[in-house]
Amino acid sequence: MSDEAAFLRQALALAFANSERGGRPFGAVLVRDGEVVATGVNEILNSGDPTAHAEMNAIRAASRSIGAADLRGSRVYASGHPCPMCLAAMRLAGIDRVAYAYSNDEGAPYGLSTAAIYEDLAKPFAEQSMAISHIPVRLEGQFDLYAEWKRRQDGNV
Amino acid sequence: MSDEAAFLRQALALAFANSERGGRPFGAVLVRDGEVVATGVNEILNSGDPTAHAEMNAIRAASRSIGAADLRGSRVYASGHPCPMCLAAMRLAGIDRVAYAYSNDEGAPYGLSTAAIYEDLAKPFAEQSMAISHIPVRLEGQFDLYAEWKRRQDGNV
Repeated sequence: MSDEAAFLRQALALAFANSERGGRPFGAVLVRDGEVVATGVNEILNSGDPTAHAEMNAIRAASRSIGAADLRGSRVYASGHPCPMCLAAMRLAGIDRVAYAYSNDEGAPYGLSTAAIYEDLAKPFAEQSMAISHIPVRLEGQFDLYAEWKRRQDGNV
Repeated sequence: MSDEAAFLRQALALAFANSERGGRPFGAVLVRDGEVVATGVNEILNSGDPTAHAEMNAIRAASRSIGAADLRGSRVYASGHPCPMCLAAMRLAGIDRVAYAYSNDEGAPYGLSTAAIYEDLAKPFAEQSMAISHIPVRLEGQFDLYAEWKRRQDGNV
């Protein structure tokens, strides 16, 4: 069995255990230099937090464990196809590679696919189901937010 | 000043205050029934958590405040264009509408645009910068993960 298959089996075992506890059937393992740095399961039902997906929890736990937000050089092994939120979070954290055991097609008969959300988010903003508007409000009598931030970054404030 | 402009000014004020404390210049306000339910600022630098964006923190705080993961009927007002992770998180949480004050174009000169990540994530999975693989591993001698979860959901386990 390859290392990747072993990490996926660990993610699946986490998903099974979570399902047995009444949670949603998702688990994830975050690996760096061939070692498991952190794991996560879907905790939406017991936390009430809609962002508490397995991959998100693994990323958060890894950043706490490593003490940094930059997870470059890491890989994620997930029991199911990551949703768009988790995929973007991995991309932002610098994850190199993600592999998953169950596809969205395999999840669809059980309502466990995020393919429809991918499709919606792939549309131009104006056509997505959630309304998204740019309203260029500014605070009066205040420096420009971004220019001021940049001056601080450069040590000029 | 419209209510929406007022909520955006509140998000901008949060972003300014966060920037003054050395954080990144992003703030968000989550509103339901015309009332602010929760706020958030970007806490990546002080938490080391790469997912600690302003909108994510507002969603998490709102779900704790409301006691539910389902935030349908809510709106988010963000100082800057939400990144793909936050946009997907809002979509998953059932947020109806998001408005933002600073566009990605306005953030680009300061390195505060996520347009490039949107472009990358809009590509077919095989062409994205992060490698994504389906490896259909299964646990031997175990029920199917999703079918077993469904049986539990239906009360048949």
